[in-house]
Amino acid sequence: MKTANPLALVAGAGAGLGQSLLSRFQAGDMTAVGLGRSRPENPVGTFHELDLSDLEAVGPTIADLIATYGPPKIVVHNTAERVIAPFPETTLKDYQRTWTSMVQSLVVLGQCVLQPMVRGGGGTLIVSGATASLRGGPRFSAFASAKFALRGLTQSLAREYQPAGVHVAHVIVDGIIDTPRSRDLHSLDPAKMIKPGEIAEAYWQLAHQPQSTWTHELDLRPASEGF
Amino acid sequence: MKTANPLALVAGAGAGLGQSLLSRFQAGDMTAVGLGRSRPENPVGTFHELDLSDLEAVGPTIADLIATYGPPKIVVHNTAERVIAPFPETTLKDYQRTWTSMVQSLVVLGQCVLQPMVRGGGGTLIVSGATASLRGGPRFSAFASAKFALRGLTQSLAREYQPAGVHVAHVIVDGIIDTPRSRDLHSLDPAKMIKPGEIAEAYWQLAHQPQSTWTHELDLRPASEGF
Amino acid sequence: MKTANPLALVAGAGAGLGQSLLSRFQAGDMTAVGLGRSRPENPVGTFHELDLSDLEAVGPTIADLIATYGPPKIVVHNTAERVIAPFPETTLKDYQRTWTSMVQSLVVLGQCVLQPMVRGGGGTLIVSGATASLRGGPRFSAFASAKFALRGLTQSLAREYQPAGVHVAHVIVDGIIDTPRSRDLHSLDPAKMIKPGEIAEAYWQLAHQPQSTWTHELDLRPASEGF
Amino acid sequence: MKTANPLALVAGAGAGLGQSLLSRFQAGDMTAVGLGRSRPENPVGTFHELDLSDLEAVGPTIADLIATYGPPKIVVHNTAERVIAPFPETTLKDYQRTWTSMVQSLVVLGQCVLQPMVRGGGGTLIVSGATASLRGGPRFSAFASAKFALRGLTQSLAREYQPAGVHVAHVIVDGIIDTPRSRDLHSLDPAKMIKPGEIAEAYWQLAHQPQSTWTHELDLRPASEGF
Repeated sequence: MKTANPLALVAGAGAGLGQSLLSRFQAGDMTAVGLGRSRPENPVGTFHELDLSDLEAVGPTIADLIATYGPPKIVVHNTAERVIAPFPETTLKDYQRTWTSMVQSLVVLGQCVLQPMVRGGGGTLIVSGATASLRGGPRFSAFASAKFALRGLTQSLAREYQPAGVHVAHVIVDGIIDTPRSRDLHSLDPAKMIKPGEIAEAYWQLAHQPQSTWTHELDLRPASEGF
Repeated sequence: MKTANPLALVAGAGAGLGQSLLSRFQAGDMTAVGLGRSRPENPVGTFHELDLSDLEAVGPTIADLIATYGPPKIVVHNTAERVIAPFPETTLKDYQRTWTSMVQSLVVLGQCVLQPMVRGGGGTLIVSGATASLRGGPRFSAFASAKFALRGLTQSLAREYQPAGVHVAHVIVDGIIDTPRSRDLHSLDPAKMIKPGEIAEAYWQLAHQPQSTWTHELDLRPASEGF
Repeated sequence: MKTANPLALVAGAGAGLGQSLLSRFQAGDMTAVGLGRSRPENPVGTFHELDLSDLEAVGPTIADLIATYGPPKIVVHNTAERVIAPFPETTLKDYQRTWTSMVQSLVVLGQCVLQPMVRGGGGTLIVSGATASLRGGPRFSAFASAKFALRGLTQSLAREYQPAGVHVAHVIVDGIIDTPRSRDLHSLDPAKMIKPGEIAEAYWQLAHQPQSTWTHELDLRPASEGF
Repeated sequence: MKTANPLALVAGAGAGLGQSLLSRFQAGDMTAVGLGRSRPENPVGTFHELDLSDLEAVGPTIADLIATYGPPKIVVHNTAERVIAPFPETTLKDYQRTWTSMVQSLVVLGQCVLQPMVRGGGGTLIVSGATASLRGGPRFSAFASAKFALRGLTQSLAREYQPAGVHVAHVIVDGIIDTPRSRDLHSLDPAKMIKPGEIAEAYWQLAHQPQSTWTHELDLRPASEGF
């Protein structure tokens, strides 16, 4: 059924940004499919509960989706495993878990979608970064290390797939995303938080850049966020 | 006449990107005004021929425009003085001219528009950079030095005007812009050149980012451009 | 026996840079100890053959060394697991092995030496980076991802341990190191290769910077190496 | 008289870092010559009072020095014109003065020394940068713009003169240099200030790096300085 709406995949589609991305893609007449560890309430489109770092789980799921909808036109990698602690309190397991859930999951995702996207005539893969993608601050040794790794990997993919018509982009999301959970955790005025729907709009625009003006990295932050 | 279409100013509005920006802004129901050293043929909107580095010329012109249309909502700084030569063949005058036309012109422009934009409730100032904004290559000592200077200045303005609601952004335009002149100068396949209308669209989107997701720097390059 | 020469540890002490570092440290009246997967011929000082990513192996070995010599004054992390291949030919195992041998090994090393160095009154930890620490090129997805990760981790350690008097620095080694193996592998004129003894001298200087002038990142490349 | 001690030039040789550099070079058996706007008390070596941005003044002075001592082996550019003010309070003259004294002075210096250094068989040109070379903070529009410009220019010179054996390096001096004037101006504990003699030692080491391990950029900051 290649006549269905084209496929948009979000890996890391929890409540918050993940679901907002799927809403935006669905509003843009795409088949919205979320993947992630735990099913959010009333997910937008379809949701597949699975371990994103597990090729045995992700591979067949994405292969099925491609068989049904054709290769995806938009794919977003949007995982965060937020370990923040002083170095002596960060365990080897913390580093492994952070890397596996943030970096290995992009490798797995790339293995499942990139070659099909090439065969399908192109598309866009967007990777969500953070301030810690550019600066390893104190207490962020595990998180920054994984976000740096993700950025290096994304750059390499961007350069390898550019000639084949797949646009790979890295977005520095700098600020606290406004979700019910953020409002509980942070005392920050929600007016100073990033609206997930507005990030989704920016990703949508990225995914529709014409071939003569591809962006490979941009930052998104509230006007109120120092930088 | 504050009920006219809001003002969009392009400093450096020659044939090519400058005129494409004005077209896009006019299509978006703005009053398009170009400023620059030499009037292009059939300019879009209004064109004021002046030396952008000359406060005595730019100041009154912009003051008049503001008196008529209110403070601008979009301002673009888009000058390039392309000196490319080995260091021993680059004269002091080359450095001075490059700096004056590229950097002093942004200072002058900022002095004329930023405080009015604050009083007018905000807006966007976009500065066109280049690959040489990030890397000083051989034969680019004058050009890269000025483009670096522009980037430092732009960052400082972004941080100073952010709290006042003025969005200042820097765009790395990486590639050859497709203009009749580029086609004469370069042997590059025009399919591999950046389309000025597509850069204009990206600037338009930048100027319409909501306050929760401002971008301060992004790159734009053809899919065919190595980086 | 705290009156012995102070301890200098090199993790990744194979033939080439690792052994040159140990020679330099030994020449500077330090107790030179190398750690690594495989014992080089005629190693300088003492060599412990072990898996650097294995805390069970590295922990007791370093604890014994500290019991004998006191906390190390200089520690170098110098591992490279050079996987270079297009993305579709790079396996999940390649990414895991690259990350484990290059990044997990620094976590393990840090866990063994950093708190003792604080208690011992300070010292220097130097991490060897590469061009791929700053740029993810095509075919370098695994290697660049790990080198980026290492840089993020190193920055975080530098900021956490700076107040405690431990200097953590990252060195971008940009070029081919002149070793018998490099001469076999590459057709490059050895005069254009980096001399490992000269890198060792630079590391020695880094380790002796006074507290008022610490360097956190520097690059080292042959005069003949484009950049 | 080419048998004299080789020439070391410091452009911007005021009290503080400039004089400390000259002391270090003199201690290394070099002919120490300072250039600058105003003669410090009891200058080390010889001092020439002149406007560093004025080719008519600098050119003949350096030509005379080269006639006497041969082309310099070490040259340092060390000027700072510290304008710090909000954008609306920074005048066009401030920008011009900052650029002229910091950037034009490097162009002039380069024009006088680089080709002679090539003919003399090489040498080192070191340019003093600052945190503002990498980040345009609020209130630093003039200063950051000039420091960025200097970095772009330095990179270009480094790449052009590398094949000819002249090592051009950029140093990020991050912190307050401990001088009598700094102690008057700042309330910072002098123990947390950078010692000018220690910066001088780092520059000396840079100038003596072997051709296989040239550094093109490094940072220097006190262990107590956050970054």
